[in-house]
Amino acid sequence: MAAPPKTCKVILADTIAKRLLQEVKDTLASIGNGKPTLVAFLANDDEAAVKYAEYSQKTCEENGFAFDLRRVDKEELEQQIREANEDSQVNGILVYFPIWPDNIAKDNYIKESIALEKDVEGLSFKHLSNMYHNVRYLDPPTNQRKSILPCTPLAVLKILEYLHIYNPILAEGNRLYGKTITVINRSEVNGRPLAALLANDGAQVYSVDVTGVQLFTRGGGIKQVRHQVEDKKDWGLKDVLPISDVVIGGVPVESYKVPIDLIRDGAVCINFSSYRNFDGPAVKEKASIYVPSVGKVTIACLLRNLVRLIANHPDKNNQQARNEAFLDG
Amino acid sequence: MAAPPKTCKVILADTIAKRLLQEVKDTLASIGNGKPTLVAFLANDDEAAVKYAEYSQKTCEENGFAFDLRRVDKEELEQQIREANEDSQVNGILVYFPIWPDNIAKDNYIKESIALEKDVEGLSFKHLSNMYHNVRYLDPPTNQRKSILPCTPLAVLKILEYLHIYNPILAEGNRLYGKTITVINRSEVNGRPLAALLANDGAQVYSVDVTGVQLFTRGGGIKQVRHQVEDKKDWGLKDVLPISDVVIGGVPVESYKVPIDLIRDGAVCINFSSYRNFDGPAVKEKASIYVPSVGKVTIACLLRNLVRLIANHPDKNNQQARNEAFLDG
Repeated sequence: MAAPPKTCKVILADTIAKRLLQEVKDTLASIGNGKPTLVAFLANDDEAAVKYAEYSQKTCEENGFAFDLRRVDKEELEQQIREANEDSQVNGILVYFPIWPDNIAKDNYIKESIALEKDVEGLSFKHLSNMYHNVRYLDPPTNQRKSILPCTPLAVLKILEYLHIYNPILAEGNRLYGKTITVINRSEVNGRPLAALLANDGAQVYSVDVTGVQLFTRGGGIKQVRHQVEDKKDWGLKDVLPISDVVIGGVPVESYKVPIDLIRDGAVCINFSSYRNFDGPAVKEKASIYVPSVGKVTIACLLRNLVRLIANHPDKNNQQARNEAFLDG
Repeated sequence: MAAPPKTCKVILADTIAKRLLQEVKDTLASIGNGKPTLVAFLANDDEAAVKYAEYSQKTCEENGFAFDLRRVDKEELEQQIREANEDSQVNGILVYFPIWPDNIAKDNYIKESIALEKDVEGLSFKHLSNMYHNVRYLDPPTNQRKSILPCTPLAVLKILEYLHIYNPILAEGNRLYGKTITVINRSEVNGRPLAALLANDGAQVYSVDVTGVQLFTRGGGIKQVRHQVEDKKDWGLKDVLPISDVVIGGVPVESYKVPIDLIRDGAVCINFSSYRNFDGPAVKEKASIYVPSVGKVTIACLLRNLVRLIANHPDKNNQQARNEAFLDG
């Protein structure tokens, strides 16, 4: 039998990133804050981080932001972050992790040392805990300051919106209801927050890593405060891939490949690993939509977060607002 | 345990019909054909048909069409249709079936007696055979005259478009790829054409009636000329409902109810029967979207077909075109 003609649509991150960046530019113009500055601390020799930093710099400059890459010694990092926290010229701060690969607690301490109002990656405890509990604002019940979501999970959400996997006919907070999604990766930075966010929006999410499968669900309704997690003992990809509408790969290992033969015909496949978790030619014979990488969307989300931080603090960041406050006073 | 809060969105046919009728009005205005006339023949005493005719009349008048209901004797019907075929004041013809409930061949003969260019319901052999073979035009390779689709199946397609089940990110002809759909009813007028149309657009369609389950698929690619049908021996609703993203009921029996407990959480449920195939309160606990009836969309599709028939024959129907042709001549 002849091979079936290809029907898979390949969507490049660039297409989606461009749309988001236009939104970011428009929002930046509307809050009239001049050229915001993002400070990035590099305290390791990670070549991937250097490349990512270079691309971030380029994207910042193209979109009206200043990007200030600071190479610092590990031992100086905390002090440098403190100074940036205090510096009114700095609007957002990020750190390239890991700093101490063998000491998660030390990396976590660094994460927490970034001021909440400059935590552009949304990795501080307050931002993460809001995300896990489906709390959208930092200042309830006033609800003027939006909580920040981590960039890569947010990028995947934005991609799923672009791909019409979020159904706009349904109520906000329920737009993934009826969808089954597998996320292969359950890291604290990417896979677990992503599974929680998808479950909070109504999806049935199978979160898979080497330790096994967990099912994340929102629970019964759309007013549920947070998702629920259940261990699926003895389950594996063989159980979850055939029933998944969307398969998201994020395994940071070059040799890892998702078993395409288990994927349902016409599924949507998205890769957020810096390695290709899907074999390109094979996945195109099986998927309806394939997104081979998300990096450019992640950077667009970083700038989206930065603009959100600025909008959260018009008093601190907006010269005009500051002047008006002075004149009023 | 408390019952989960309802998350189902109920979409009424009226909402979707209004949008379609606006499109129809705009198209009618753009082809500038004055007030087209639809002739409907009633040759039985079916009370449902009378009600449907009354509603059709109202919709026609509200949207710039004349509706001419002609009550005729069964034995006069063919002659009356022939006269309407010849009458240049008549733009579309429909007949309320069945006329001879015990003689399908006689009803079919009546169907074929309607002139192709006035067959507003798309039930003639030529229109049906084009639909089954996924041929969109009556005049290949010129492709100026569009083939007509039967109104109820077309209404369900338009509803699925409105509900974002058709994914606009995918190529036309492939927008249901990856979706599994169950259609309960395999009549020649509704269920079978609907299953074929959905399969032609890429869905995996389980067509269910009292005789069993058939699987309709498009085959391997989007260039496949027509769908393929496969008998699923010993399969039943218990096999197909749990794996269906969309469940479409069309059983014309008051007592019939789809077994809600078999439906997948968050499925989309649509009823095109004139009876309620889904128990309302129960389906709202299970579905993400529920469309309880399609009648008003069907009538909007009828008028859409009528405008298409007129556009197919600008020479016969458009006074302005006729005048221009005369002046050119």
